[in-house]
Order: sequence, then C-alpha cells, then structure tokens
Amino acid sequence: MSKNYNFLYLRRLGIDTHQEPVVYMRQDCHVCRAEGFDAQTRVRVTTDTNSVIATVHKVTSDFLSHEEAGLSEAAWALLNAQEGQKALFAHPAPNDSLSYVRGKIYGRPFTTETAAAIINDITQGRYSDIHLAAFVTACSGSRLVNGEITALTEAMVNVGDRLHWDKPLVLDKHCVGGLPGNRTTPIVVSIVTAAGLTMPKTSSRAITSPAGTADTMETLAPVDLSLEQIRQVVQDEGGCIAWGGAVSLSPADDILIRVEKALDLDSEGQLVASVLSKKIAAGATHTLIDIPVGATAKIRSQEYAEELASQLVLTGQHLGLTVKTVFSDGNQPVGRGIGPALEAHDILQVLQRKPQAPTDLIDRSLTLSGHLLEMGGAAKTGEGYRLAKTILESGKAWAKFQAICKAQGGIRTPGKAPYTYDVKALNSGYITYINNRLIAKLAKLAGAPAAATAGLYFLVKLGQKIDKGSILFTLHAESKGELHYALEFLKTHPDAVRIEDEAI
Amino acid sequence: MSKNYNFLYLRRLGIDTHQEPVVYMRQDCHVCRAEGFDAQTRVRVTTDTNSVIATVHKVTSDFLSHEEAGLSEAAWALLNAQEGQKALFAHPAPNDSLSYVRGKIYGRPFTTETAAAIINDITQGRYSDIHLAAFVTACSGSRLVNGEITALTEAMVNVGDRLHWDKPLVLDKHCVGGLPGNRTTPIVVSIVTAAGLTMPKTSSRAITSPAGTADTMETLAPVDLSLEQIRQVVQDEGGCIAWGGAVSLSPADDILIRVEKALDLDSEGQLVASVLSKKIAAGATHTLIDIPVGATAKIRSQEYAEELASQLVLTGQHLGLTVKTVFSDGNQPVGRGIGPALEAHDILQVLQRKPQAPTDLIDRSLTLSGHLLEMGGAAKTGEGYRLAKTILESGKAWAKFQAICKAQGGIRTPGKAPYTYDVKALNSGYITYINNRLIAKLAKLAGAPAAATAGLYFLVKLGQKIDKGSILFTLHAESKGELHYALEFLKTHPDAVRIEDEAI
Repeated sequence: MSKNYNFLYLRRLGIDTHQEPVVYMRQDCHVCRAEGFDAQTRVRVTTDTNSVIATVHKVTSDFLSHEEAGLSEAAWALLNAQEGQKALFAHPAPNDSLSYVRGKIYGRPFTTETAAAIINDITQGRYSDIHLAAFVTACSGSRLVNGEITALTEAMVNVGDRLHWDKPLVLDKHCVGGLPGNRTTPIVVSIVTAAGLTMPKTSSRAITSPAGTADTMETLAPVDLSLEQIRQVVQDEGGCIAWGGAVSLSPADDILIRVEKALDLDSEGQLVASVLSKKIAAGATHTLIDIPVGATAKIRSQEYAEELASQLVLTGQHLGLTVKTVFSDGNQPVGRGIGPALEAHDILQVLQRKPQAPTDLIDRSLTLSGHLLEMGGAAKTGEGYRLAKTILESGKAWAKFQAICKAQGGIRTPGKAPYTYDVKALNSGYITYINNRLIAKLAKLAGAPAAATAGLYFLVKLGQKIDKGSILFTLHAESKGELHYALEFLKTHPDAVRIEDEAI
Repeated sequence: MSKNYNFLYLRRLGIDTHQEPVVYMRQDCHVCRAEGFDAQTRVRVTTDTNSVIATVHKVTSDFLSHEEAGLSEAAWALLNAQEGQKALFAHPAPNDSLSYVRGKIYGRPFTTETAAAIINDITQGRYSDIHLAAFVTACSGSRLVNGEITALTEAMVNVGDRLHWDKPLVLDKHCVGGLPGNRTTPIVVSIVTAAGLTMPKTSSRAITSPAGTADTMETLAPVDLSLEQIRQVVQDEGGCIAWGGAVSLSPADDILIRVEKALDLDSEGQLVASVLSKKIAAGATHTLIDIPVGATAKIRSQEYAEELASQLVLTGQHLGLTVKTVFSDGNQPVGRGIGPALEAHDILQVLQRKPQAPTDLIDRSLTLSGHLLEMGGAAKTGEGYRLAKTILESGKAWAKFQAICKAQGGIRTPGKAPYTYDVKALNSGYITYINNRLIAKLAKLAGAPAAATAGLYFLVKLGQKIDKGSILFTLHAESKGELHYALEFLKTHPDAVRIEDEAI
C-alpha cells in the first residue's frame, strides 16, 4: 500500500531558481507527512521517463492542491515534465561522492576515481547549493595539487559532449576574465583561419559581464549553431565563432562557476580545470591563454598570474593539450565599445582597416594571432605578429570574417542605441585610474547585454591629458529608464575614472 | 526619478524555504530590469519599518503582477510584512565579513574582531546558504585553533539574548547528540534542584530526532515560557525545564546547525562553539557535558570524544565557564520509550520509583546528577551519585518535579497512541547490534515528534537472550497510515536490531 502514498501530480509554477531544481510541496500533503519531507529536504522525483533530485520548498498556502506538487523551471526542464503528469516522490539514495568531499575537507586528496564520482554527481544535479559551496571551498586556498587538478579536469571533460576534428592541429584561445571590451576573438579567428589554420571557436554569453563574445558576435551573425552546422562551417572556412551553449562542453563547469561567483572565490585549481576542460572538450590540440593582469581585473598580481600560467601549462601537458600563456595589461578597458553592438562596431573598424579603429584592440588581436600562427606552424618563432599584421592589412581577415558570417547564416549590421548621454570630465588633468568593475557595472545598468545596443563608448585611456568638459565616455541605452538608472549609479560612484593633476 | 523604479508591493506566497529568506520577482518587472536582478541575486528589501536581505527567485509565469513581489515565509516574518505593503528593492551593501571567510580559506586565522563580524552578519541573515556552507567548510577538518574557537563562541554569545542569574553558581547540562530515548534532563533537574542548587534549564525541540527534551517535557507541563516566567519559576523552585525558543540564545547556532546537517559535517570547533555559546548565554557558570560514544551515535570513536572533551574544557576556561565532561555508552537507546509521550512515561516511572522503571535511565540520571551535585558543592567528590540516589528514592525529586511543573503552568498526563504494532523476533538468539539511526528513523516515520504519542517502545537491550516471536519493540502511531508507513520502511531495513546465535 505504501506505493500509492508517494504519488503527486506535477504543475509548472514558472519559478526560476537558476540551476538548482526545486519542488514545491504542501506541508500537509500525504507525501510530506508520510516521508517526513521538510523544507530543504532533498527528494528524488521520478516520472515514467525521467528522474531528478530536487530541494523541497514547503507550501503553507492554497496555491497547490493536496494532490499537486509544483516544479521550478530547472526541475521542469530536467524532468521534461508534462502538466498534470504523475510523479513518484522518495528519499534519494545516499550521495556517496559527498563522502569524498568530506574526505578532502579532512585532508584526503582527490583521486581519478573520486574526482570522477564527484563531477558526475554534480552534473546529474545531485549536489544542492550547500554541497556545491562545500566542494568549491574545499578546493580553494591552494588545496589542490597538480594531480588533483588533472583528475578534475579530465572528469569535467568526460561528463559532457566532446567535439572531434579530423585535423592533426586544432587551435583555440581563451581569455581569463574580466576586461571590458576585450573582444579580440572575432578578429583573431579571422586572421588565423585566413592563414589556413583550423580554429573552431565556441564562446559563451555574458554571465556577469556586459557582453560575452557570443553576445557581441550575435550582432554580426547568427551564433546559435547546431553541432552539425558548426562542423559544416569549420569544414568550409577553417573556423567559426559560435555560441558554446548549443553543445554541452564541460557542463559541470557551468554549475560550479555560479557558486564560485557567489563566493567570489577564484580558486586557481578550479579555474585551471574550468578553462582546460572546455578547450579539451572542444577538440583543441593547442590553446593560447591570455591572462590580463591589473588591480581591477580578475587576476590582480603578476605573482598569481605566473602561478596560474604554470598550472595551466602543466595540467595541459598531462592531458595532451599544448598550452601557451601570455600576460597582458589589465588596467583599463580595451577598444572603445563596451556592450554587444558597441564592441561589434570596434571589431568592424579593425577588420575594415578604418583609420579610427582602436589601436589597442588591433595590437592585442595581432599579438594573440601572432602566437597562434606560430603555434600552428604558419609562422616561424618571432614572425607571427608580422604575418598577422600582413593578413589584417591585406583585407584577407575581413574577407574571411565575412565568409564565416555568411557560412553561419549571413552577416548583420549591429544597431545603435536611441538614447545616449555624454559623461564629461569635471576637471582637467591626467587619467590616472580606471575601475574596470565599475565601468562594467555601468554598462550593465544601461542595459547590456540584454539590450544589445546598450553600454558605454569609452573615449579615454590611462595617462591621457584631458580638459575639463571633454567627454570621458558616452552611455548608450535602449530606454530612458535604463539610461537614468546608470546615471544615478554614476552619481554615487564618481570614482569610475579618476583625473589628477599629475600623470603617474 | 530613479527611486520610483525600485518599489513593488509585497505578497505573502506561503512558501517555506526554511531559514533562507527568498523574494519572488517577475523577471520582466521594472525593478529586475533596472537593477539587473537575476535568479539567486541577493537583494535588500526595505519597508517603512524593517529591512532584510533575500535571495531572488525569478517568476516567469503570471501568478504575480508586474507591480508585486512575493515573499517566502522566512522573509515575511523577518520583515514583519503586511499584505500589499510597499517595499524598496536594492542591491545590498557589500558584505565585508565574507572577505574574512575567504581569508580563512586562504589560511588566515579568525580574530576576535573578524569572528564577531562574521557571526553578526550570519545572525542578520546576510549569508546565503552558499556563504554559510563555505564558512562551515572553512571551519571543518581541524582548521580552527583554540583561540579561534573561543572567538567564535564569544561572538555567538554576544549576538543573542543573555540570561543573568543573581547566584554565584548556576548549573547546566548538555548531551552531545544522538541517542534515542536519552531523556535524563527532567530527572536530573529535579534531583539537583531538590538538593537546593540552581539549574535553569532551557532545551530545544527536535530538529532531526524523534523528540527533543522540550517536546517530551511538553507532554508533562507547559514549556513555552516567556523570559519573565522562566525567571519566576527559577526563583521559586531553583530550576525549570523550559523550551529555549522563547529566548534567543546564540541564534547564529540555529542557522549554522541546519547547514552542518545538510553537509553531514561534524566540525569539532563548530560543535564546541555551538554547545558552549548556548550555555554561556543561558547564564551557566558550571556545565556538565555528556558525550555518548558508539558506532551509530553522533560521536563514534573514543579518540574523537577525548579530543572534543579537551576542547570543550579549554574553551570553557577561556570564557569563564567550568566544564566537566563524561563519556557514556552510545551503543543502544536509553530507557524504553522513543518519542515525546513514550519518553515521558519512562521519566514518570523513574521519578515515581515504579518497580518497572528502566534501570539504564535511572543509572544515567543518577550519574549525571551526581557529577552536578559535586560541581555545585552539595556533595563531596565521589559522593554525588549516592546523594542523588537518596534524593530520588526519598521522593524528593518527584515532589520537586511536580512543583516545577506546577510553577510552569500545571502538570499534564502524557497520552497513549491509538494504534500500536508489536515487532517480533524472527529467530531466537542474542541481541548483538542496535542501529540507533534506524530506530530514530522508525519513530519519526510513525509520526514523532509532531504526533506526541507516536514512536517506539523498545523492550530489548544489547546482549539479551530472546526467543523467536518475543516482542522486540512496539510501534505507536496516531494514524493507521503512519503506522503502515513505518512498517513498510522496516521491511526494507530489517537490520535495525540484529539477533545472532552467539552473544558478543
């Protein structure tokens, strides 16, 4: 008889709890009473076809009937549920891999097997936010030795999709976070593939930044490609600039990143596993990693940058991936545009060799392209930059970019925001400090990335001498409200750009 | 104008998310759009009178209007909100104490100041579950040195209420978790106060066990006393047996315990801070701590028990609290009853000197009372047990217990459950193993503690020789469904009591 005690009918409530699946159950329903489920209990919900572990939120009002259980959006999607579908509710089997996390907390290193068990359970949704936070914390503070980082990276690759390319040498690049406007990828892919090399680039959308590469690229061409479309574009053009979301590369990483952000913990080991697992899953053989270093960038000290670089190279070696790292200046935004369409305009100026194209974006793109051309054997050591410059200036990169856009579904013209506001210098002097974090925040408040044409157009550089009243940057917004909201924030945070009497 | 952008009208949704306050906001409402709030963002919600930090769950359906925000029960209670009340939504100020948690993760010990800042923020609800889990993890694995434990304990005392007694010597006792039926407190308080000593005992309700001391005592007398009532009872009778929930002693502890349970992490340092902060806040000068040790108890090894004991004593010393610890057998339930009323019947048998009173409960109560009588100066060293026995056998303890019950509002007679089921031995032999965890679980499935008369009446002890068909224990339930549910569980978990051919 007990079996009938555990059924309820599913209802989609339309509540987005982010990645954590939540089930809403009346506290006085027969299942909660019989099973002793309480708020925050983890339960297994099973339909005819699927099963998921979710966290209970108890309903004490009447918006559910006694026969119903509500599901959050994450739970609904994982179960692929139907309105009114019958589901079984039960205590989940004990989560054995949590004992490995506890073991790590007490000083026992991860092995290949325990790392695989943990990452598998995380990907299957068996870890609540509390469990994920404990795992992330246990991995932080230099507590992972290289063998553990390798084990975690491999485990993260194995739980997701994996792309395979019928080429001996496949290039990729990555930038370790946090510099507004640093949108080199479309330029770099165009130069490198114009030289005949293979570079199937998948990029992410913004998580907390004003634009991800995929957001920017989407204002120039479709990026939402299927696996089959990606293969076709790369076969025809040698490369692509697509959104990684269509394929599930290192899905555990997407889950962990959210918790790391909430904790503001940049665990070196997790960062290495995160970056390399995505590259290996994407089928790369050689990866260039750009590490911007600066006081308001993600990586704030040269010492940490070098430690990180050596872990990236070493872990890559263990897993058969050639990794090269470059350090770059992380003290100010790159180019002028910040926000999807504004960055796209910068990219077009560079590719079309416009005289007003931002020189820092050109230089960064050529530096990275140069390294990749050397890694791919298209240029001798020390000659990559020059070859990249030749390809860009010849117009071949622009031609290749147009061909890639066409192959991805056709080139688009990025729009312009209807509302703009010039933020001017209150005094004259030298630009001595630019706070990347505040600049990124302003662009987001103005609406980026959801509003594709919103953001900032940034006109000054560190060390530059400016007059009182000259424009520092222009805010772009798609609604008056968002524009005013960014301006209100600016009033209380005047230190986004500092102007002082003497240059430093 | 921006101010108007941030108001919404509050609605109580009746969703119990446990301690974490949650706010439900439409993703397309003007506040989410303007502020960039996303699922899991932390926001400050402010009404005319109160303010709370809550986690955003985004609503993608129409059960809220564009002008409304829903609140979880925890958020509703903390805000003391009114239906339709106007509230302001904003990004909270940065939580500085999280940087101390990060510091600890990277190896920087807590100081008096940083411990105070963390515990204060936790008590104010500024830590999400993810933050709490990181803090608990960072404190686990013997990562706290004694100075840090002392700092945390003191911080936990300082954020809550504190009882003061105009007495030079105030006794308290505590049992470190996890033994079904171990309900010595009402007996011990009666004996100790009958000897003229002061013992104002506040106890908790069950969190995950079939009965807390407050649940059991409530079947015998009211326990829901105000601070003023507690003072009066203690002044008149020298002691009380009240529910601690009416006063807010070490409120951070209640928040942390939930996360520790979800992680199944018994951090020694946290445990010490948790126990001692409650005792110091309750105004004790001398505390006896009972540590049951057994394979299925909370403390599973003698080695760990001794380490814990020494930390308890040392931390107590630093904070002016005299702590004495005793180790006891944690291998089987104590007494016969498991569940509020069933345990109360055991207590009455002991106090009323009934011949069938369980001898193990008597012996444990006398041992603990003896130590307390010695700590309080009512008996010389080595003579406490004998004095306790005299007081119990003279009827003075029973008289005192009745007086305390009367002072708390009148003595009650615990009820009996309408449905019972005898679980019998399937073969004859010796009882070689009793799984405390499964026994506790069975009692909960039968309805305890919400159903006060539900639970188990346990008739056998380790080493006892029994015949096939004799009763091992009787299940008690207030509904047929709950009884059957416990029986179903028993079918799949036959190993709660093991019977073997030879005694061990």
